[in-house]
Amino acid sequence: MDEDYIEVHSYSEVSTSHCAAKPVAVVTPKNTEEVSTIARICSEYKIPMIPFAGGSSVEGHFAAPYSGLSVDFSEMNQVVAFHEEDMDVVVQPGVNWVDLNNSIKDSGLWLPMDPSPTALIGGMVATNCSGTNAVRYGTMKDWVINLTVVLADGSIIQTRHRPRKTSAGYNLTGLFTGSEGTLGMITEITLKLAPIPEKQSVAVVTFPSVRDAVACASKIMRQGVPIAAVELMDEVQMGVINKNGGSGGRMWEEKPTLLFKFSGTTQSIAADIAKVEKISSQGSGSAFEFAKTEQDMHNLWSARKEAVWAMCAQRPEGTQIWSTDVAVPLSRMPEIIDLSKKESSALGLFSSVLGHVGDGNFHQAVMYDPSNPAQTQAVQDCVKKMVRRAIEMEGTVSGEHGIGLGKKECLVEELGPETIAVMRTLKRSLDPHCLMNPGKIFEP
Amino acid sequence: MDEDYIEVHSYSEVSTSHCAAKPVAVVTPKNTEEVSTIARICSEYKIPMIPFAGGSSVEGHFAAPYSGLSVDFSEMNQVVAFHEEDMDVVVQPGVNWVDLNNSIKDSGLWLPMDPSPTALIGGMVATNCSGTNAVRYGTMKDWVINLTVVLADGSIIQTRHRPRKTSAGYNLTGLFTGSEGTLGMITEITLKLAPIPEKQSVAVVTFPSVRDAVACASKIMRQGVPIAAVELMDEVQMGVINKNGGSGGRMWEEKPTLLFKFSGTTQSIAADIAKVEKISSQGSGSAFEFAKTEQDMHNLWSARKEAVWAMCAQRPEGTQIWSTDVAVPLSRMPEIIDLSKKESSALGLFSSVLGHVGDGNFHQAVMYDPSNPAQTQAVQDCVKKMVRRAIEMEGTVSGEHGIGLGKKECLVEELGPETIAVMRTLKRSLDPHCLMNPGKIFEP
Repeated sequence: MDEDYIEVHSYSEVSTSHCAAKPVAVVTPKNTEEVSTIARICSEYKIPMIPFAGGSSVEGHFAAPYSGLSVDFSEMNQVVAFHEEDMDVVVQPGVNWVDLNNSIKDSGLWLPMDPSPTALIGGMVATNCSGTNAVRYGTMKDWVINLTVVLADGSIIQTRHRPRKTSAGYNLTGLFTGSEGTLGMITEITLKLAPIPEKQSVAVVTFPSVRDAVACASKIMRQGVPIAAVELMDEVQMGVINKNGGSGGRMWEEKPTLLFKFSGTTQSIAADIAKVEKISSQGSGSAFEFAKTEQDMHNLWSARKEAVWAMCAQRPEGTQIWSTDVAVPLSRMPEIIDLSKKESSALGLFSSVLGHVGDGNFHQAVMYDPSNPAQTQAVQDCVKKMVRRAIEMEGTVSGEHGIGLGKKECLVEELGPETIAVMRTLKRSLDPHCLMNPGKIFEP
Repeated sequence: MDEDYIEVHSYSEVSTSHCAAKPVAVVTPKNTEEVSTIARICSEYKIPMIPFAGGSSVEGHFAAPYSGLSVDFSEMNQVVAFHEEDMDVVVQPGVNWVDLNNSIKDSGLWLPMDPSPTALIGGMVATNCSGTNAVRYGTMKDWVINLTVVLADGSIIQTRHRPRKTSAGYNLTGLFTGSEGTLGMITEITLKLAPIPEKQSVAVVTFPSVRDAVACASKIMRQGVPIAAVELMDEVQMGVINKNGGSGGRMWEEKPTLLFKFSGTTQSIAADIAKVEKISSQGSGSAFEFAKTEQDMHNLWSARKEAVWAMCAQRPEGTQIWSTDVAVPLSRMPEIIDLSKKESSALGLFSSVLGHVGDGNFHQAVMYDPSNPAQTQAVQDCVKKMVRRAIEMEGTVSGEHGIGLGKKECLVEELGPETIAVMRTLKRSLDPHCLMNPGKIFEP
């Protein structure tokens, strides 16, 4: 019940969404049975339960608008079983994905997701996260074989056994994945693993405009080149990297940039690079600059991955960052990114676009002073415009961050009240007293 | 209400599951609004609704144990919109997947699923089907972007817009996919499409035993060779192909056989083949025989795809086929296939194993005389043993056929009553009077 401890369990500086209410306490269960006990007690006394994993959500997933108990999974951080020959691993929700991959790398297997390095697997499942590798490997839902879940009343279910393929009954694994803790608390996860590619290569190409860069990425996807990743960083982002000392000391041109990752065998990578270079040069791309060493490649990719933290580190005293994402059908991407960048630049604030453009998914980040109401309103309006535009283009209001507190209204605009009503019906059937992370995704 | 028409809507010779009750009538709606009207009327008069697509289910999905109305989607067979640049297509449920792929092939795109050639997309979604390409491309759930669904009360929802990636709200698309018509009727589907691979190549290798063949397939998967497909056919199946005139006139050795499909570029295929040949020769595999021409490749693959029809064509008068599947973790596959084959061979009946061994998924088919109670019981016992063994190995009672009528008891054994209770709770929340395909997956 320590105040500081409660504070870090309900507030994050990278989150767009905050609320005044706080949890009354934080509990740190050690196993599924303890989680079940917590749920039974909370159910009896009608206390909201708010699952907490890495705390790196940007949409207020672990805020406690109705107060209640924060259930922190950091002490459930064991790898339960590693089935190397079956290419799967059973983990508790508090395992960090980078640690997991380090611990199993001698097997030649990995979990090919790539969200924030701080993310824990429980949160990654709950928000159906993804990251830079999604264009090749899909999103978290594609890597979950089964879940052990504690429901609101304390009952414990396992959604599946361990087959890599099944069509037996409702896909409960898929329903709990991405349900943001509103249907139950995930206490154990079996993950598929993939073979680590033989080789990887990273290349950097600059473009005259963000629109040219994105159009090139669309074309590469449409032609089916099996790239491992393609990330957009605008000139502002490249400047942030340089101001932070570059990547491993190397400085970059401050222009709209695509970072490509290629993976496979030496031969297949060479063929992929040749195709991408051809498409890129037709689309005003510069010559390819390749990361020359493993370390160089690692530094460059890390610079991309740490973009949001780098921005935070550079932000003026008293400002906050508003970082959010949408996704649209591939053909609409150049247009929405171009317009969104123009609009956010017109705010006169620090703003940037970056993203997983091979999936039609991108992020916008703006720094603003929350004590300035006009500025706050202007940023909100700008984000709303971007989200509305994504909806008009038949896209989604969240490509990989989830809904949380921050995008509930947007979700109604995207799907309509009938579809939200179906979600609410399902929620109420499993959690009639709305005790599981209430106030997230939709109004209770 | 024609009797013959009702008969073909409730009975199939390839199904393991039948029931005496029949639908009272068959309706053939032309659009979503007509389906909604049907649901409103059925809801008012408490009439069960049984969706019907291709009729090629083997687990009795379109049987009508509580009678009711068969809702036949064959007249909803239009491609609604093809978004080539977005790499997706919007279809009605009555579209045949082979026809779809033929109609869009000039775009260089395809739906990379490969179930029975008779399957319609509505049924493919409802059963979360897959087939030979699943090892590379996943199952149907991985290719559905959104669904339009008519619920039991006639209300119409769309689960999503058209982004290829999203984490916005519950994954209703994933919940309705594989729900076997028990939660609602699917009336429109947006499908992701993939680029057609530049080249394909098909090779055949024989092994001294089924166990050796499957062990080789497991090893190839574990080493991460990106094969397009690997199919097991036992010596009995190869005999069936030969008796049916071979593939395009070519006869094959009647030994346990792996069929490999490779796809990619000329270079990547050559590298993949070299790796597979090495693993195979270490595992007692024969020399590779390659399909020499496009036609040869097509014939060979068709022979595999039509195995079940070929068996039906050869079966003695009065006998029936019992064809069913399970899936297990990869490392357990050699053992379960070996044991299952020994047990089914011991019946003294025509029996065969074949399957998608790269996924840990295989099929067993036995021909028996249903008028002979001892024989029927022996086949049932043999299937039950296979299913129990799959469960003991942490596998699933259905890799790709669904549960239907035929495997309800097995599903309880696999998942336990608590997990089934969650499925039932979800079902009742959307369909309180149990009108949507009642009696499938679990007891109402």
